[in-house]
Amino acid sequence: MQDRAVTTRQTILTTAAEVIIERGYGGASISQITARAGVAAGAVYFHFRSKEGIAHALLGVDLLEGLPPRRGPALQYWSDLALLMAQRLDTDPKVRAAPYLAALADNHDGWTSPWPAWRATVARPLHAAEREGELQSHVQPEAVAELLISAWAGMAGHRTPGTAQAQMRTFLDCCLPGIAMPAVAARPEQHL
Amino acid sequence: MQDRAVTTRQTILTTAAEVIIERGYGGASISQITARAGVAAGAVYFHFRSKEGIAHALLGVDLLEGLPPRRGPALQYWSDLALLMAQRLDTDPKVRAAPYLAALADNHDGWTSPWPAWRATVARPLHAAEREGELQSHVQPEAVAELLISAWAGMAGHRTPGTAQAQMRTFLDCCLPGIAMPAVAARPEQHL
Repeated sequence: MQDRAVTTRQTILTTAAEVIIERGYGGASISQITARAGVAAGAVYFHFRSKEGIAHALLGVDLLEGLPPRRGPALQYWSDLALLMAQRLDTDPKVRAAPYLAALADNHDGWTSPWPAWRATVARPLHAAEREGELQSHVQPEAVAELLISAWAGMAGHRTPGTAQAQMRTFLDCCLPGIAMPAVAARPEQHL
Repeated sequence: MQDRAVTTRQTILTTAAEVIIERGYGGASISQITARAGVAAGAVYFHFRSKEGIAHALLGVDLLEGLPPRRGPALQYWSDLALLMAQRLDTDPKVRAAPYLAALADNHDGWTSPWPAWRATVARPLHAAEREGELQSHVQPEAVAELLISAWAGMAGHRTPGTAQAQMRTFLDCCLPGIAMPAVAARPEQHL
């Protein structure tokens, strides 16, 4: 895609996410989106074909986007991922709209719930941590991954801006002692 | 209210919650609700005046409903509250609709966000636990209460039925070791 087309696509997505957050998916219209984004309706249809196409694009958010490659313990990488996910909730309407749309997915024909993919992404570092002896033996990586996704999705619904990062720190402060081996949790230089 | 009026009111609320969960608030109509509930439109207007009146009623969910009075440690009571909240998400559409509607509250004129009241309800046993020496010194009751509400709200958005209780157990298993004093966390007979 041309740079300009990429920019237009991103503008449409961000604006659509804002409108969906404010009015709900059912209450959002293409005309509201084009008016606020300052783009022609033709651009929306060219990039997404329909409002549904926009929803699919927003549901396809890559949770790992912007995360540096793993260096250090797997649980550290998992914590970094969790904090980045929260930061993006606080700063990017596109990310904030995703869990809201995910909650609607089961009731829309042809929408695929992103939960399994999200859970797999978040579980992967936990499985690595398990293999590498960083997790307490009772911990189930898939269950903890599911919990993190739920907590993250719930943070998206609380509209006080900027609170997701603080909440995610609380989540990690509370949870890491209950899942990490003491030796891992006690390594302060790893910010665990 | 007469018994019959109470029953009708509950039927309308439950049905409205189901329709709102399936179609979103913007997509739900009084006529869908009355058709599914098998009640006359007049009954809806009598009890709630409008679709907005139904939303206000659903937002007014009492998180403590059905919780036995506290007996035993404050953190035990808090855990029981958390598990009951999750159970009600799994079993009662009225409760499941509440966090969804709460996420819309800031963008609807005249809606009051229930988050502050929910947080206060969930924080109260944590403040008691703090006073009674059950919490580790670094724990901030309000922050943990906020996190619990977020996690609970996020569980409501994941549509696999019946998963909220399992997720809440994971939440408590993970978090309690990070917030409870070791002596409290180690009391197995308290199911902490």
